[in-house]
Amino acid sequence: MSQLSPGKTIGILGGGQLGRMLSQAAAQLGFDVCIFTDEPDSPAARVSARTFVANYLDAAALTDFARRVDVVTTEFENVPAQTAEILLTAGARVAPNPRALAIAQDRVDEKSFLNTLGIATPRFAAVSSQAELDAALPEIGTPALLKTRRLGYDGRGQIRINTPQDANDAYEKLGAPGILEGWCGFEREVSIIAARSANGATAFYDVCENVHSGGILSRTILPARVEAHTERSAREAASAVLGALDYVGVLTIEFFLMPGGALVANEIAPRVHNSGHWTIEGAMTSQFEQHVRAIAGWPLGATTRRCDVEMINLIGEDAQSWEACAAESNARLHLYGKRDTRAGRKMGHVTRLLA
Amino acid sequence: MSQLSPGKTIGILGGGQLGRMLSQAAAQLGFDVCIFTDEPDSPAARVSARTFVANYLDAAALTDFARRVDVVTTEFENVPAQTAEILLTAGARVAPNPRALAIAQDRVDEKSFLNTLGIATPRFAAVSSQAELDAALPEIGTPALLKTRRLGYDGRGQIRINTPQDANDAYEKLGAPGILEGWCGFEREVSIIAARSANGATAFYDVCENVHSGGILSRTILPARVEAHTERSAREAASAVLGALDYVGVLTIEFFLMPGGALVANEIAPRVHNSGHWTIEGAMTSQFEQHVRAIAGWPLGATTRRCDVEMINLIGEDAQSWEACAAESNARLHLYGKRDTRAGRKMGHVTRLLA
Repeated sequence: MSQLSPGKTIGILGGGQLGRMLSQAAAQLGFDVCIFTDEPDSPAARVSARTFVANYLDAAALTDFARRVDVVTTEFENVPAQTAEILLTAGARVAPNPRALAIAQDRVDEKSFLNTLGIATPRFAAVSSQAELDAALPEIGTPALLKTRRLGYDGRGQIRINTPQDANDAYEKLGAPGILEGWCGFEREVSIIAARSANGATAFYDVCENVHSGGILSRTILPARVEAHTERSAREAASAVLGALDYVGVLTIEFFLMPGGALVANEIAPRVHNSGHWTIEGAMTSQFEQHVRAIAGWPLGATTRRCDVEMINLIGEDAQSWEACAAESNARLHLYGKRDTRAGRKMGHVTRLLA
Repeated sequence: MSQLSPGKTIGILGGGQLGRMLSQAAAQLGFDVCIFTDEPDSPAARVSARTFVANYLDAAALTDFARRVDVVTTEFENVPAQTAEILLTAGARVAPNPRALAIAQDRVDEKSFLNTLGIATPRFAAVSSQAELDAALPEIGTPALLKTRRLGYDGRGQIRINTPQDANDAYEKLGAPGILEGWCGFEREVSIIAARSANGATAFYDVCENVHSGGILSRTILPARVEAHTERSAREAASAVLGALDYVGVLTIEFFLMPGGALVANEIAPRVHNSGHWTIEGAMTSQFEQHVRAIAGWPLGATTRRCDVEMINLIGEDAQSWEACAAESNARLHLYGKRDTRAGRKMGHVTRLLA
């Protein structure tokens, strides 16, 4: 992959906060940024040189976009396969590659892929009907989670099954092909942010410890309370995934940390990730700049952690605490410029730089 | 001054790299940014929500701009007095105030103002003709610098007078009302970046040591090689200037450091400053965010330095070294997105984070 020089244009699918922070990182390196989003007045558009507002299946708009940018990336994994195909047909360089996006879009394919690489996941079964759910339940056991195979995020599209009775009518409630996942009795949740460049070089940030609330990340702390062997396992898993996907860019794996320190992979995000926001001030190179470096064919940046750090998400009404956050001497406030505050909506985050 | 909440709009006069980095800092706090510049396709416009491209004396455009933003600030001190007047008439809140801009625009007014506050400057005399230059020279002595009173920057509009013979025809060469400044035999150049909020609170960054080349800043290092009493003097001078101007925002004073540690003030910049670029990664709050906080009526951020740091300007062809800079593990690369490389043009900078 040839190296893009400063002044070239980075295309980003998606107009949310991840696109916004990617855009700012790209601009710092001297790139122009063009956003493609179906949302008018999006957070990313307001910090970018140019924006296409169109449907993700609008072939004419996508073709025009592809011709005006030098590489296309995405801030979300649920890019329709057809979108990627139109972009590739129009001659766009797309990173990460569509296969990586496709695998991460389907929870069954994702877990099967991980297992193929020898990476443990929770027990799971694909369920496409109530009968399949009923059949799978004894094997998976309770408690279990019934999730949609596709298009779930931040805990949406999930039904908790604590007893076999909870499974009655659950498939109908889910309303889409699903996956039944066994509960694995984990101690904590952790994630790793990793990157791979076009020439196969890899880089890993320190493992993050994450606290979720209502299915949404609420807090990330570094250093994570993990042993060295767990940190090594996370890097090995990420390395295997990056290599197997011939991946270019930043990729995140979320894990369950089991008693004793073993890791069970929960999810791959083929993109920058909320649990990596701490890298903006807490690491030598932010995950956003790292992703831009990778997709532009640049060398990866140093991932050294600069200090201990805590990242708190500002969700919904939390963002009204901006004054208190702004007054805290070791807190760095990030607000995403979203016009409407809604429950469960990620409005910003605060990074506290510790000792 | 009332506090602007996130979602409000910050107006910035000027489309260069300082406006670009101010805009990015404002966006991080959740503000929208509107740029007013006479340059099409400017570096700042490409990272901002909205841009007016018009002459700085275009009353209709300025009035429209003033009505669409919640506060107006500037990235350069040479804002025409008439521009500020039009903005104020249109009801804009302007920070820093026009008096501060006016004083910094005229080297004679600036030095007289500093002397009034008891802050030492080089010997100087206003010269409006060759006869006045000839009359002033014996008093000021040689070597001396003949500078335009107004509109000089980065060493432009300056004539070095090493011997009385150099003064012959010098006024004609200068071609504008000037100031003759005595040479003060300094050891080094240093600067202080300071901020004042609307309620009168002040904050100071560590004194920076600066190396110029051909009249243009080439390198800033922290910590500066200065004694504690010099650091104190710099803060006292900045504090006096901020207070006397009822200043709101970030202000910079450049000093000559004399043998023994005394400071002689060279120049006030009523704005964020090239010698403060290190604060982006090197301080808890960057000078850009600090300025936005001040003009938005927010509390000032912590100015704590996070590490030793060196900032290198990439001037003209220097920017072609971007690959080498991008490969350095402790270097953070910033490129301003300028389309044309010209000798003496600031194209970017690199910040090295040291021990």
